[in-house]
Amino acid sequence: MTLEVGVLGYRFMGKAHANAMARLPMFFPDAPEIERSVLVGRDEEALADAADRFGFESTATDWRAVVDDVDAFYNLGPNHVHAEPSIAALEAGTPVFCEKPLAPTLEEAEAMAETAREAGDDVPAGCAFNYRFVPAIRYAKELLEAGDLGEIHHVRGRYLQDWLVDPDAPWSWRNDEDMAGSGALGDLGAHTVDLLRFLVGDDDLAGEIERVSGHLGTFVEERPVEDGGEGGDPETRPVTVDDAYTAQLEFANGALGTLEGSRFATGHKNDHTLEIHGSSGSLRFSLERLNELEVLREGDRGYETILVTDEDDPYVDHWWPPGHVLGWEHTFVHENYEFLSAVARGESFAPSFADGLTAQRVLDAIERSDERGEWIDLE
Amino acid sequence: MTLEVGVLGYRFMGKAHANAMARLPMFFPDAPEIERSVLVGRDEEALADAADRFGFESTATDWRAVVDDVDAFYNLGPNHVHAEPSIAALEAGTPVFCEKPLAPTLEEAEAMAETAREAGDDVPAGCAFNYRFVPAIRYAKELLEAGDLGEIHHVRGRYLQDWLVDPDAPWSWRNDEDMAGSGALGDLGAHTVDLLRFLVGDDDLAGEIERVSGHLGTFVEERPVEDGGEGGDPETRPVTVDDAYTAQLEFANGALGTLEGSRFATGHKNDHTLEIHGSSGSLRFSLERLNELEVLREGDRGYETILVTDEDDPYVDHWWPPGHVLGWEHTFVHENYEFLSAVARGESFAPSFADGLTAQRVLDAIERSDERGEWIDLE
Amino acid sequence: MTLEVGVLGYRFMGKAHANAMARLPMFFPDAPEIERSVLVGRDEEALADAADRFGFESTATDWRAVVDDVDAFYNLGPNHVHAEPSIAALEAGTPVFCEKPLAPTLEEAEAMAETAREAGDDVPAGCAFNYRFVPAIRYAKELLEAGDLGEIHHVRGRYLQDWLVDPDAPWSWRNDEDMAGSGALGDLGAHTVDLLRFLVGDDDLAGEIERVSGHLGTFVEERPVEDGGEGGDPETRPVTVDDAYTAQLEFANGALGTLEGSRFATGHKNDHTLEIHGSSGSLRFSLERLNELEVLREGDRGYETILVTDEDDPYVDHWWPPGHVLGWEHTFVHENYEFLSAVARGESFAPSFADGLTAQRVLDAIERSDERGEWIDLE
Amino acid sequence: MTLEVGVLGYRFMGKAHANAMARLPMFFPDAPEIERSVLVGRDEEALADAADRFGFESTATDWRAVVDDVDAFYNLGPNHVHAEPSIAALEAGTPVFCEKPLAPTLEEAEAMAETAREAGDDVPAGCAFNYRFVPAIRYAKELLEAGDLGEIHHVRGRYLQDWLVDPDAPWSWRNDEDMAGSGALGDLGAHTVDLLRFLVGDDDLAGEIERVSGHLGTFVEERPVEDGGEGGDPETRPVTVDDAYTAQLEFANGALGTLEGSRFATGHKNDHTLEIHGSSGSLRFSLERLNELEVLREGDRGYETILVTDEDDPYVDHWWPPGHVLGWEHTFVHENYEFLSAVARGESFAPSFADGLTAQRVLDAIERSDERGEWIDLE
Repeated sequence: MTLEVGVLGYRFMGKAHANAMARLPMFFPDAPEIERSVLVGRDEEALADAADRFGFESTATDWRAVVDDVDAFYNLGPNHVHAEPSIAALEAGTPVFCEKPLAPTLEEAEAMAETAREAGDDVPAGCAFNYRFVPAIRYAKELLEAGDLGEIHHVRGRYLQDWLVDPDAPWSWRNDEDMAGSGALGDLGAHTVDLLRFLVGDDDLAGEIERVSGHLGTFVEERPVEDGGEGGDPETRPVTVDDAYTAQLEFANGALGTLEGSRFATGHKNDHTLEIHGSSGSLRFSLERLNELEVLREGDRGYETILVTDEDDPYVDHWWPPGHVLGWEHTFVHENYEFLSAVARGESFAPSFADGLTAQRVLDAIERSDERGEWIDLE
Repeated sequence: MTLEVGVLGYRFMGKAHANAMARLPMFFPDAPEIERSVLVGRDEEALADAADRFGFESTATDWRAVVDDVDAFYNLGPNHVHAEPSIAALEAGTPVFCEKPLAPTLEEAEAMAETAREAGDDVPAGCAFNYRFVPAIRYAKELLEAGDLGEIHHVRGRYLQDWLVDPDAPWSWRNDEDMAGSGALGDLGAHTVDLLRFLVGDDDLAGEIERVSGHLGTFVEERPVEDGGEGGDPETRPVTVDDAYTAQLEFANGALGTLEGSRFATGHKNDHTLEIHGSSGSLRFSLERLNELEVLREGDRGYETILVTDEDDPYVDHWWPPGHVLGWEHTFVHENYEFLSAVARGESFAPSFADGLTAQRVLDAIERSDERGEWIDLE
Repeated sequence: MTLEVGVLGYRFMGKAHANAMARLPMFFPDAPEIERSVLVGRDEEALADAADRFGFESTATDWRAVVDDVDAFYNLGPNHVHAEPSIAALEAGTPVFCEKPLAPTLEEAEAMAETAREAGDDVPAGCAFNYRFVPAIRYAKELLEAGDLGEIHHVRGRYLQDWLVDPDAPWSWRNDEDMAGSGALGDLGAHTVDLLRFLVGDDDLAGEIERVSGHLGTFVEERPVEDGGEGGDPETRPVTVDDAYTAQLEFANGALGTLEGSRFATGHKNDHTLEIHGSSGSLRFSLERLNELEVLREGDRGYETILVTDEDDPYVDHWWPPGHVLGWEHTFVHENYEFLSAVARGESFAPSFADGLTAQRVLDAIERSDERGEWIDLE
Repeated sequence: MTLEVGVLGYRFMGKAHANAMARLPMFFPDAPEIERSVLVGRDEEALADAADRFGFESTATDWRAVVDDVDAFYNLGPNHVHAEPSIAALEAGTPVFCEKPLAPTLEEAEAMAETAREAGDDVPAGCAFNYRFVPAIRYAKELLEAGDLGEIHHVRGRYLQDWLVDPDAPWSWRNDEDMAGSGALGDLGAHTVDLLRFLVGDDDLAGEIERVSGHLGTFVEERPVEDGGEGGDPETRPVTVDDAYTAQLEFANGALGTLEGSRFATGHKNDHTLEIHGSSGSLRFSLERLNELEVLREGDRGYETILVTDEDDPYVDHWWPPGHVLGWEHTFVHENYEFLSAVARGESFAPSFADGLTAQRVLDAIERSDERGEWIDLE
C-alpha cells in the first residue's frame, strides 16, 4: 500500500519535509511507500512551481479538500493556521504531522491535543520537534536512561540566532502576535523545552517542569515593511512579540533549569545548546556541531568529545561510514521515517500533540510569569 | 616609605595574597615598598608556621591590636568576620582590603560601605574581586568601552564547581548560613555579579541591574562532620545555605541577563564563564582558559579566539613574551599592585566597598526573590 | 535532453553518487536532467538489489557494453579497475567521472590522463576529489585567491583514520598492492595532495610541489581473511601496502609542507585536516567539522571560527538558511552538479584526469623517496 | 646549608629562573635553602639593575671568577657561550644548569656532555628543558608509562611562532649561525625533540629516534639592524639560520614521527603542540593551554579534555585548589626545585647534559639530512 501524503506549506519547512520524504526509499528501505500526493497553498503560481520542484503529483488551494482525502496530512503553515486544518484532518481520521510550536495560543493547542486524544492512538498526531531525531540527542537519551548521569541537578538550554539584531531587518509574520503567538519564545523556546523534556523528563532523572519564572524582551519596537513605503518614509509595523526571552525552571525532583532564546545574539545563526549536569555525569550538545556530543561520566575527569557517527549509533547505519558527518536535514529524514512508519502501522507517534501541548503550557507559563512578575506553577 | 601590611587569615586567601605581595618587587618595580608586617589568626602554632612560610615579620592573635597599627589591613577571614575588623580598621583610618563577598548579610555590608564612605576617599577600602584583574577581562572592558560591541542586549554568567556533588563531602563553614551568609550564591555569584557590573555597568552599555528573579536550591540537606562520629553513625550537620542558584536579570537599558552558580556541576572545577551579546558584537570568557578571550566584532562572521598575552595587553608587559601564559594567581598580583598603589597615594580603589555592597544587594534581592516567588526591584 | 548515466560500482561510492544525482532536481534545478540509466557490476543479485535501491533503470555485468552507450560514465570500482573502462569510455567519446586515486600505478594514471587529453576538452574527464566541493574549502580558496593570506610559507595536511589499528581487523583489497596500488598513501594522501594543490597551487601563493621526501610504514604485516579458516587457525593474507605515511614537501616558492595519513590514528575516524600559514594570514579546516573554517587575517589576533553556511557562501543558497549545517554527502551533490553541467555543456571539468595524474605523481614520488631514502624532484 | 647560586645571563631566562628561585620557599618548603649569590654579565649598569631587581647579592663581569666559587652555576647566556663556562664549572666540580639547546654545534655539545660524564653523577649537569615540568606533561608520561596508550605508532610535534614573519623584524643573534647554531630548529626543535623523547623514548613505547629526514627553510635572507643605518638605507645583516624546519622521524619500534618548527606561522605566538597515537589510545597537548591534556583511552570514543589541576596531579598540591590554573612560569619553579634538590643531595638530574646531547644529535642529523637530501641514521 502506498501512503498518499498531503502537505500544507511549501516554503522552508515544505522543502525540508519534501526532501526528507524523497530520501526515504534509498536510505530507509523499510519505510512505507509514499506518494507526495498534493501540495496545498494559496499562491497558485508559486505553488505549482514548488510542487514541480518538490515532486508532488498535484496542488490544491483549499486544505478542506485535502485533509480527509489523504493518508497523512502535514501542516507546515505559519502558526496561526495550525489549529483548524489539523483539527479537521484528525476529525476525519487522518493522521497529522504539524510543525512546532503546536499553536499560537494555549487554547488552540489544547483543542488540537484534545482532538488528537479523541481521534485515538491509531491516528498518529505528531508535533514536528525534529531535534529529537539528531543521532547525538538519541545517544544522549540512551546514556541518560541508562543512568550514566545519575539524578539530574542542572539543565541549561539556549537557542541563539541574530537575524533581527539589525533594526532595519524587515517585519514578517514572525514579529506579529496574532500570527505567531510569540517570538523567540515560541519559535525557539518550543524546541528547547521539548528537547529538555525528552531528555530529562523521566521521573528518575528530573521529571517534568513544575514551576517557571520567565522574562520576555523586545529590543526593537517596530520594523520596516519589506518593499514598502516607496518614495517617502518607509512603512513600518509594530513588533508585538518578544525578540528574546529568559526563564528559570524548577523540575519535579528539584533540579534547577535556565532557558534562553534570542534573535539578537550577534554572531549566532542557529546555535541551540543544551547542557545537563547530573549526580554522576554531565553532557553538552550544540546544534551547530550536531554530529558531536560531549559527555562526562563517572570516573572521567573531563568531557569526552564523541563523534556520534558510528555504525551502531542511532540511525547512522542507514547513512555513511564512521566520521562521515550528517547535516541538519537528516533530522527530518529520521522524523519522517518514524512518523510515516507510525502512520503505516496505525500506531502512536512521539513527539505527539500532547507533547506539543505540554511544551506550549511551559511557554505560556513563561509568558504569564513575565506579565505577573512571579513564578507560575504548572499543574 | 615602606607600607606595613597586616593580614587576617592565613589559609587559601592568605597564601594567595602573601604570594602576590612577595612578587611585586620583581615584576612591578613601581609598586610601593611593603613589609608583610603581621599575620593575624587564632591557632598560634599554625599561625607561626604560616607567618614563617608567607614571609611575615610577626603574628598576632587579636586583630584589635593590629588594625590601627598598620598602613593597610587585609581581611581574608571567613565571611562572618568581615565586618567588625574592617569597620574598626577604617574607623582608625587604616585602608582595608576585604575578601568577597563583602559580608554574610546585607546589613553588615551596608555598615561596612557606610564606614568606608565616612573614612573618605583617601582611605581606600577595597573588595577583593580579583577577576577584574585578569588581563583578558581588562581587554574585554576596553573593547566594551570603545563601543566595539555596541549596546548590550544579553549577558550570561555562570560559575560552576562540583566539590559538593558527593553527598559525603564533609560539612564546612561554607555550608552554614550564620558563617557564610549564603552558599553558591554569595561565594560564586558575588564574583559573577561584580564582573558583569564591571564590564557592562556603564550607562551606554547596559547600565546597572534593575530587577532580578532568583532561585536557590539545596540538593543535600545535611553533611557529615569531618573526623566526626567515630565508632558509630557519623555526626552530621545541616546545610543551611544553597548548593546552587539561578537568576534572571533586567538591566537599566532593558538588557536581559541570566546567572547561575553551582557546587554540583559535575566535572567543573572552577569554571567561571561570561558571555555578552551587543548590537554589534559578542564576547566570551572562561576562567579555566583565562589567557583567552573570544571576540566577535562588526564585520566578523565568527568569534576570534584571542590569546591576551601581547606586550600591550593589560599588565602583560610586566611578565613574559607573547604566548607565555599567565595563571590564576597573577590576578592577585595585579589587584595587590593596584590596591597598594592606591594606599601609597592615598587614593580610592575599585572595586570598592561600595561595589561590594552593590553586588551584595543583587545577591540579597535574588534571595528575597526566591523566598517571595516574585521579581524584586533594586532601588 | 536527458543525460543517460552509467555507473560502475554499487557499494559505498555507488551509493554516494546515486544519492547525489537523485538530489539534484530539488536543490539544483538548473542542473541537466539525467537518468540513472545503467548500473554495472559482477554479482547479479546484489547488483539488481542496488539498482532498485539507487534508482537505476537497468543493470549490466560488462562495462564494455555500457561505456559507449551512455552520455556519462562513472567509474566507482576499486582502484585496479579504474584504467581500462575509463580509457575505453574516453576513446568512445564518453565523458568519465572516476573515483580517486586515479589509478593504482603511475603508468596507468598516465595512460588515463593521456587518453583524456586526446579525447579533448569537450569530453570532460573528472577525478572525483569531492573535498574540493566543501563550501568551507571553496570559501578558503576565495580568501587565498584574494590574497588574504599573502604568500604561503607553510602547508600541513593530515588524514587520520583508525580502522586498522586492531591487528585482527580483516584483510581487504585495500591492503593489497596489486589491487589498491598503495594503502593510506593512495587512499588518503590523494585527497590531501589534491586539496592542497587546489588551495595553494597558484603561482602567487605557493605554486606546485617541487620536491618530496616520504616515508611509509606498515605496522601489521598480515591480517585474517574474513570468514576464513574455520576449524583451525584463521587464514591470513599479507598486507602489501602502507598502513600510514608521512612526507615533507617543498613548493615552487620555497614553502614547506608536511603530510600525513594513517589508518592507525586511534580515535580518529575521518579526520582530514589542513592548515596553511601565509605572510599575512592563516587558516585551518577539519573535515569532521566541515561547516567551519578557522581564518586569521591581517589585523586579527586569533583565528575566527566561521560557520560557512551563509546565503552567499559557495553552494549554500541551494540548501538551507544560515546555521543549518550540511553533511559529508553534500560534497557529492556539488561535484555531481558541476561534473554533469560540464557534460551537458561539453566543457572541461576540474579536478580533471590531469589533476588526478599530478596528485599521483606526488604520491609516486613519496613512495620512491621512501624506497631510496632521499628527496625526489618532481619534473 | 644554604646553596650559593651563580647565574650567567639576566634577560628573559635570567628573569624566569630568578623568579623560580624566589618562589621556592613559599611553595616548595622542602627545597634546599638557596642564596641568589652572584649575577654575571657584561654590561655593568644593566647588570646592577637586574641584580637588584632579581634579588642577587652581588654581580660579576667575568664568569671565570664565579664558576668554582658557587654551589651551582646557571648558564643562561646565548647559545655560543654555553660550552666554555659550563665546562669550566663542571671541571671545578660545580653543578651546572644550562639553557637549551645545549650548544650551537654538535662538537661543543659533545664536549659538554663528556665533561659532565667525567664530573660524575654527584655533580648534576642539567639541560633546562622546562616543558618536561608541565604538570600535564608529567601526567601524560604517567599514562604512557602505565601503558594506557599501548605501543606508539605516531608522534607529531610542532612549535609555531610568528615573530619573524614581518620581513622588517630586526636582526638579532638568533638569526646568526655563529652565535645561535641554528634558527627555529635549535631554538624550538630542541624542545620538541626532548619532550617527545621524554614521553615515548622508553623501549616499550616507541624507543629512541633512529632515522631522520629534515628540511630547513629561510624565507627572508637579510634583516635590518635595529636602530641602524640612520640617514640612508637601513643597514641589514644576513640571516644565516633557518626560519623554519620540518622533519620526519623513524623510531626504534617503527613508529612514524613528524616535526615542525617555525617563526613564520602567522598568528601563533608560542604554540608548542604534541600529538601521540598508540595502539590503544591517543593524546594531545598544547603549550598555550598548558593546564589541559586531551586523552583518549581504551573504550573511549573521543578525547577527554582533562584539566590537570587536581590535588594529586604532579606538582599541583604545592599550588592552588582544582581549577585554579597555573602559568608558563610555573614550569621553571618545578625544574628549579628538582635541579636544586639534586644539587643538595649530590645526585644526578634529568634532563641531563646527555639528554641535551641526544636532542642535539637529532637536530644535527636533521640539518645534515637537509644538506644531503637523504635520510640520516642516528647511531
